[in-house]
Amino acid sequence: MVAGERTQRKAGTGSPDGVAKVTITEIAREAGVSVPTVSRVVNGRSDVSHATRARIEDLLHRHGYRRRSTAPGARAALLDLVFNDLDSPWAVEIIRGVEEVAHEASVGTVVSAIHDRAGDARQWMTNLRARASDGVILVTSVLEPGLQDELQRLGVPLVVIDPAGSPATEAPTVGATNWAGGMAATEHLLQLGHRRIGFIQGPPRLLCSRARLDGYRAALDVSGVAVDDALVMPGDFYHESGFTGAGRLLDLDEPPTAIFAASDQMALGAIEALRRRGLRVPEDMSVVGFDDLPEVRWSSPPLTTVRQPLSEMGKLAARMLLDLARSVDLASPRVELATELVVRASTAAPRRA
Amino acid sequence: MVAGERTQRKAGTGSPDGVAKVTITEIAREAGVSVPTVSRVVNGRSDVSHATRARIEDLLHRHGYRRRSTAPGARAALLDLVFNDLDSPWAVEIIRGVEEVAHEASVGTVVSAIHDRAGDARQWMTNLRARASDGVILVTSVLEPGLQDELQRLGVPLVVIDPAGSPATEAPTVGATNWAGGMAATEHLLQLGHRRIGFIQGPPRLLCSRARLDGYRAALDVSGVAVDDALVMPGDFYHESGFTGAGRLLDLDEPPTAIFAASDQMALGAIEALRRRGLRVPEDMSVVGFDDLPEVRWSSPPLTTVRQPLSEMGKLAARMLLDLARSVDLASPRVELATELVVRASTAAPRRA
Repeated sequence: MVAGERTQRKAGTGSPDGVAKVTITEIAREAGVSVPTVSRVVNGRSDVSHATRARIEDLLHRHGYRRRSTAPGARAALLDLVFNDLDSPWAVEIIRGVEEVAHEASVGTVVSAIHDRAGDARQWMTNLRARASDGVILVTSVLEPGLQDELQRLGVPLVVIDPAGSPATEAPTVGATNWAGGMAATEHLLQLGHRRIGFIQGPPRLLCSRARLDGYRAALDVSGVAVDDALVMPGDFYHESGFTGAGRLLDLDEPPTAIFAASDQMALGAIEALRRRGLRVPEDMSVVGFDDLPEVRWSSPPLTTVRQPLSEMGKLAARMLLDLARSVDLASPRVELATELVVRASTAAPRRA
Repeated sequence: MVAGERTQRKAGTGSPDGVAKVTITEIAREAGVSVPTVSRVVNGRSDVSHATRARIEDLLHRHGYRRRSTAPGARAALLDLVFNDLDSPWAVEIIRGVEEVAHEASVGTVVSAIHDRAGDARQWMTNLRARASDGVILVTSVLEPGLQDELQRLGVPLVVIDPAGSPATEAPTVGATNWAGGMAATEHLLQLGHRRIGFIQGPPRLLCSRARLDGYRAALDVSGVAVDDALVMPGDFYHESGFTGAGRLLDLDEPPTAIFAASDQMALGAIEALRRRGLRVPEDMSVVGFDDLPEVRWSSPPLTTVRQPLSEMGKLAARMLLDLARSVDLASPRVELATELVVRASTAAPRRA
């Protein structure tokens, strides 16, 4: 291969993806190895001997082969999006938002579930290191301190969506105005004339759960309605706990006339519990949810709920992470996006006693 | 650094992730560069000059630094899971299955949406090449032929879940027994005594849609019930088309007594259309869905539906892809997992006329 050819090839490197297309095949031929072997060297994989790697590296250099370009839009970056479990339509909303921003920045979104299991989290960390991920978005989850230290040591930035514990961590967080949302839902029921309002709460280990419960209590308090702890039922955000919680509320000596469930899935479980007892929503009991998952527009009846901008939260977390990866200072390290009450058909004035 | 130290380090490379932890920092110090620069070389990134790269490569070799190991469980591999859109709880079921198998194999799952837009698909392909993904799982989507050829040229294996067009492609496919499922749902309604059964179909470009419609027709035919094309409504698998389709069925001169919707989301939309007209499910109209999304256990009433093993389909596709990436021959390149009728509370015998 002569100098003239090399010059010609350089002139032709303006291909859309910044990679000179012929070269990799020619490099393989010249090195006497397969195309995948050259790919492995280009991509920093291990399964190539040192001698072969050195020969290929040298050929790549001599022929002016352009690696993954550093130009924006051509860099092969990755971010890690980590859930505890992938078992809720909630997750897909977050994924959509993160993927949209990441895709625009030519960043791949690696989705993982670590199931609150130490072994899974450690395996994930090993994989994260091996793939040289550029950052981590952690969703309503906690990393054991060892892993969090390891991220920091590796210089891998972290953004947390809906932080679980208190923000002992220094990581920036994205959430929604859960307290204000809890208050808005309860105020809506109070304005309709409800005075006994049941509440089915989320897992107390999550700050977002606590904030919704406190918002509920604050609204009652502001309206001069005594908070009755017998009306507060435990739950875990999943359907079944809404079903069970509503059943227990109905079994009270003095049941409520409305139920505020701290997630849409629990609200749907509650509605099913009411239906099984022959009670109509909203004629016999009002129900409010929290999340505004796309499907609750289509529940029977369509659900009054507090909208969390889940995909926007994903987008914002991704933008913050990309800024951190580029060492851009964040305008604010703790952001809460506004929730909004969406009134549909599952709430009405209580029946006259 | 002396030979004795090197030997000692080699003896200590049995760390859980197969990477000698101290070395990378030491390499950086010895090379007079930052730790991230060494990482970039190890991970094949471009933003390092040839001279620096060569110096670091040499140090890595001399100190016996172990790159991403080829031992199973320690390789930093990636697979790409590609949807048209991330806008359905359906997607999270597939993601969960793929992620579970990929995680066990220490493979990262990169999730993308290409929105049926040529620009997005091309950008995705550029990113896929840059990150050296080991394989692609495409979900109910089509790649333009140019991109498919490119995958083949790059030697990147492809598995398709629920192929869209006819399998002109040579890629292995994973689906569900959609025809048998369509037949089972229709037979269930026939056995309850229904004779006029409406059908709301999915997008005709998808083979799975066509198979469900054909199963519906076959069941009617076997039972000697004439197929009435006026009872077949268009749909796109989303709620709204179920709502609209059910409305149109009710407006017929001779409406059906049961509706079979080709997706759960359309079935929920249909139930809401019935509720708005004051009709009860199943007393006034039976409704059957297709998918068995986790939430339809909790719809009001709980939905009778055809279960597609979505997460199992994801798992199987991931296993097939990992086999292809290891050049293991597939036992069968076209697999359909069994669907199953799940009878809940949305179906009953028709009211006596």
